[in-house]
Amino acid sequence: MIRLTRRECFNAAHRLYREDYSDEKNLEIFGKCSNPNWHGHNYELFVTVSGPVDPGTGFVINLKLLSEIIRINIIEKLDHKNINLEVDFMKGRLASTENLAMAIWDQLSEHIRKHNAKLYCVRLCETENNFVEYFG
Amino acid sequence: MIRLTRRECFNAAHRLYREDYSDEKNLEIFGKCSNPNWHGHNYELFVTVSGPVDPGTGFVINLKLLSEIIRINIIEKLDHKNINLEVDFMKGRLASTENLAMAIWDQLSEHIRKHNAKLYCVRLCETENNFVEYFG
Amino acid sequence: MIRLTRRECFNAAHRLYREDYSDEKNLEIFGKCSNPNWHGHNYELFVTVSGPVDPGTGFVINLKLLSEIIRINIIEKLDHKNINLEVDFMKGRLASTENLAMAIWDQLSEHIRKHNAKLYCVRLCETENNFVEYFG
Amino acid sequence: MIRLTRRECFNAAHRLYREDYSDEKNLEIFGKCSNPNWHGHNYELFVTVSGPVDPGTGFVINLKLLSEIIRINIIEKLDHKNINLEVDFMKGRLASTENLAMAIWDQLSEHIRKHNAKLYCVRLCETENNFVEYFG
Amino acid sequence: MIRLTRRECFNAAHRLYREDYSDEKNLEIFGKCSNPNWHGHNYELFVTVSGPVDPGTGFVINLKLLSEIIRINIIEKLDHKNINLEVDFMKGRLASTENLAMAIWDQLSEHIRKHNAKLYCVRLCETENNFVEYFG
Amino acid sequence: MIRLTRRECFNAAHRLYREDYSDEKNLEIFGKCSNPNWHGHNYELFVTVSGPVDPGTGFVINLKLLSEIIRINIIEKLDHKNINLEVDFMKGRLASTENLAMAIWDQLSEHIRKHNAKLYCVRLCETENNFVEYFG
Repeated sequence: MIRLTRRECFNAAHRLYREDYSDEKNLEIFGKCSNPNWHGHNYELFVTVSGPVDPGTGFVINLKLLSEIIRINIIEKLDHKNINLEVDFMKGRLASTENLAMAIWDQLSEHIRKHNAKLYCVRLCETENNFVEYFG
Repeated sequence: MIRLTRRECFNAAHRLYREDYSDEKNLEIFGKCSNPNWHGHNYELFVTVSGPVDPGTGFVINLKLLSEIIRINIIEKLDHKNINLEVDFMKGRLASTENLAMAIWDQLSEHIRKHNAKLYCVRLCETENNFVEYFG
Repeated sequence: MIRLTRRECFNAAHRLYREDYSDEKNLEIFGKCSNPNWHGHNYELFVTVSGPVDPGTGFVINLKLLSEIIRINIIEKLDHKNINLEVDFMKGRLASTENLAMAIWDQLSEHIRKHNAKLYCVRLCETENNFVEYFG
Repeated sequence: MIRLTRRECFNAAHRLYREDYSDEKNLEIFGKCSNPNWHGHNYELFVTVSGPVDPGTGFVINLKLLSEIIRINIIEKLDHKNINLEVDFMKGRLASTENLAMAIWDQLSEHIRKHNAKLYCVRLCETENNFVEYFG
Repeated sequence: MIRLTRRECFNAAHRLYREDYSDEKNLEIFGKCSNPNWHGHNYELFVTVSGPVDPGTGFVINLKLLSEIIRINIIEKLDHKNINLEVDFMKGRLASTENLAMAIWDQLSEHIRKHNAKLYCVRLCETENNFVEYFG
Repeated sequence: MIRLTRRECFNAAHRLYREDYSDEKNLEIFGKCSNPNWHGHNYELFVTVSGPVDPGTGFVINLKLLSEIIRINIIEKLDHKNINLEVDFMKGRLASTENLAMAIWDQLSEHIRKHNAKLYCVRLCETENNFVEYFG
């Protein structure tokens, strides 16, 4: 068993807020992240899969394939998008890094399982100072 | 003469577009950066000042002071903001990295001149793959 | 369950040595790190907490709060300090990265527990080439 | 118990291919990584050991010693080498990052065990976008 | 006038040597970089162009276009290649970082001039510890 | 003409203060950097030399030689040292990054001139947020 990690990046806008709160209440709880006019980040996504090494290729999973799975299911849906308004799998969810990482897990795990590997960890970095890790 | 550089960061949303263009025309020219629902970045700003070293302090300029000048005039106005909608010194300007760097120069140069140093360069990094430098 | 990590930095001086050893013996065991005149580092501290995501906020813990806990209990006590001479929670302990990471854990774990999260890992980087991780 | 990680770097050439495949078949499976004329990387190696902290030194293992073990057994054999042609412990193995990480583990684990610590993880980064981790 | 920089990466193999020297003489002058079996690097290329900002777009040059010029003329010819054997514009030249940076300049400058900008600098990083800059 | 840059690192302790000031006055002017018990940094030093490329080697200067010049004249004198107390070329000078960069220039320029190259720039990074550049 070995773990393989692929890094992919996307740039997106978001806002932390609850619809059932006033702007004042959102500001109190979410601070400047609640700005109704949005702000954004360069997100760095690290997808880690685990599995045995295929003796015929020396790979856990072909990196090109893994990158393609991430691109189609995650990057194309998030890159240069508004996470609150435009991302189907984030509809109705608070756009926190935690929730986004868990939603990315849900988008990826089935696709990776089809290729004899298991999704092990989704690490999502919002800034150089904070990131989350989700293990399913 | 020596140069001193201070790095500061801010996270903001923006959109590249012209009001006199349709969404289709904006998409053609600005690509996914024209998304009407915005996207965003973790901007890294490097402000370089030059001047003689004060023999009494060993400084070109006190770093705390330089950081404060940048914070008040730039970071507080850009961090967690929408560059197109909320930043007074970007009103009516295309929110490209080039234009933003030049506007930051205009905001800072006078303040730095008051402290026996000269603004030498504004470097603004939009992603790890692209940045601009403006020298006045 | 998800893990959230916050990075904070501090710059400090230290020395690796034992009082019951001569300078020669300290040099033999700790090398140039035993220099009686001190040396120092830009330490990078990564504090990882784990817990369930609060459905009301989308957070494991509010990042601002986590940053504040680290600032008050760790950064203010270590930043621009001499670890051997000035840090109460390092008194009488060898100022190795290992011991410092464990002491930081002891300073933080109670404070984090009060906010429905658990301290999971303290990672302390002394240089770009070495770091330690402590899990309690 | 605490974990200590040391980073070391090496630059090497390699090629992903199987001798029993034609160049066309290798190209189909391994893509441009199969180039018969080789390509190369700046590899970053992170070696993590775990163990109790020696109260006499404050160390899991002396970093200088750990660095020396890695240098003699890994770096001198890989740095500025052709992984397929010149590295004894990779003879007859596909030169994938996965296989190289596992081979590095086998080279290091005994040497570290002699010093009251255990090899915990070998992390090998091939590019800024992909790395593997092996835990034995 | 403003400067815009684009980063692109490629992985390649090379060897520093002169055909008119013996392996021993090459080793004496070029050290381990002369290994006849090749070694390689993850090269980071920073291409800086300068020019006035187009008021209609806010750009010195469209980044997508600049990236495409670099991709077609440089990255496709160097990525996963052997610099000594396979790169037409390096034929008969010592494969040093200096010579490669100058050759990249020659490949790019005409293409950039066609788009109302001037190539200002080619920075080529061979490792995290060394890079060259060429200004034409 | 081309520029070549070498990065070297050192860890050192220092203090910003003037002997003719009280601790209070030093604190007022230099802030926490004046701590009488010292603090320290992981300094990153970038030494840039310029010159023509030697057609026989493809080099401005042999990197190994440049690294050796920096090691002997700078790193061995600064690494794991107290800049205020132990570094001959900083005696009697305020230990600011500006002054240190200028002193490093003075130590290096003659040595580099002997090898058909010119020292072009000394860049000294004290933290990830501030650095100075000196051009002689």
